[in-house]
Amino acid sequence: MKGKFITIEGTDGSGKSTQIELLMKYLDEKGVDSVLTREPGGTPIGEKIREILLDKNFKEMTDITEAFLYAASRNQHVREVIIPALEAGKVVVCDRFIDSSIAYQGGARELGADMVMDINKFAIEGVMPDMTLFFDLAPEKGILRKKKEHELDRLEEEKLDFHKKVYDAYKKLCEDYPERINAIDADDTVDNIHKKVIEYVDKLLKE
Amino acid sequence: MKGKFITIEGTDGSGKSTQIELLMKYLDEKGVDSVLTREPGGTPIGEKIREILLDKNFKEMTDITEAFLYAASRNQHVREVIIPALEAGKVVVCDRFIDSSIAYQGGARELGADMVMDINKFAIEGVMPDMTLFFDLAPEKGILRKKKEHELDRLEEEKLDFHKKVYDAYKKLCEDYPERINAIDADDTVDNIHKKVIEYVDKLLKE
Repeated sequence: MKGKFITIEGTDGSGKSTQIELLMKYLDEKGVDSVLTREPGGTPIGEKIREILLDKNFKEMTDITEAFLYAASRNQHVREVIIPALEAGKVVVCDRFIDSSIAYQGGARELGADMVMDINKFAIEGVMPDMTLFFDLAPEKGILRKKKEHELDRLEEEKLDFHKKVYDAYKKLCEDYPERINAIDADDTVDNIHKKVIEYVDKLLKE
Repeated sequence: MKGKFITIEGTDGSGKSTQIELLMKYLDEKGVDSVLTREPGGTPIGEKIREILLDKNFKEMTDITEAFLYAASRNQHVREVIIPALEAGKVVVCDRFIDSSIAYQGGARELGADMVMDINKFAIEGVMPDMTLFFDLAPEKGILRKKKEHELDRLEEEKLDFHKKVYDAYKKLCEDYPERINAIDADDTVDNIHKKVIEYVDKLLKE
């Protein structure tokens, strides 16, 4: 496919949203034809699934149901948004993708990376990111930031231990896929982080 | 587990609902502690997933997303309703279960039985029906019945060819699992069909 697929990953409160906004502005100013999307969600069906996933009343949700709902949203997203945009030569920036499932359901929910990959191989239909940026921030700092911003959703509300497991799973992914995943220290100023982001993105776009 | 798990399968309009109602009344009069449940749905989370699955506006839903949503609803159902009821020694009657996924997504959507089983093995966590009753009715007759009853939902609205594929997949399941699945000719009077249903159920309860 002609386009480039960039995914953005990190624990809650790692500053993803701010950096994504700056990155999209940068791509726009550079005249790069780009699309921003997110998971879970990104399509009308995916947004309906997202509502179920983040609903605070559904504390009884099983870990496997959670993994299936993410995978359901993902396949819709891949077919309806990501593949058509990549085929049209666009740069697709996606806020969370398969690594989130491996970190949250595989790591923190303890389903294991293998089981989550077994489920997700059907969801992604071979579409893996060309590059992933991981915003690396200690989970205790991230959750503090989120609490200041808004009422926490079902996943953000999990205990600190959960977020530590998410973080550990991300660090393991960084070790396992060093060519695809670039970790960026997110305990820094917005400007400094943005500079590192565009360094990686520019390098990818030149390839 | 101490209870018995009975699933009811069939193409749309095969008369499942009428027969399930009569079966539950029969079990009740017999003093059998029984639970009626259904898929997709059967739990608050499952009912939300059901709304997405049957929504007529979501014609763009991918076949894989559909399979994942059924599997998501199923795991929640197995853990929250079916396993606790079976552990309490109850007879669980479930309107559609894994065979529906194999017939609809595996057969009619052409994902194949293997892929649907690969996904669903995580959903059912080893809980297979003790007995399945398949209401065998030519799909053209079933769809005619449904049209007389109400406006068709997203799946019922599929073309006749789709329903024929569902039917063929069910017939294949009957061949593959002759010990578990009992086919009942559904082109008969309500009374005659009910008699056959309770014959099979009584036999199972005596085991």
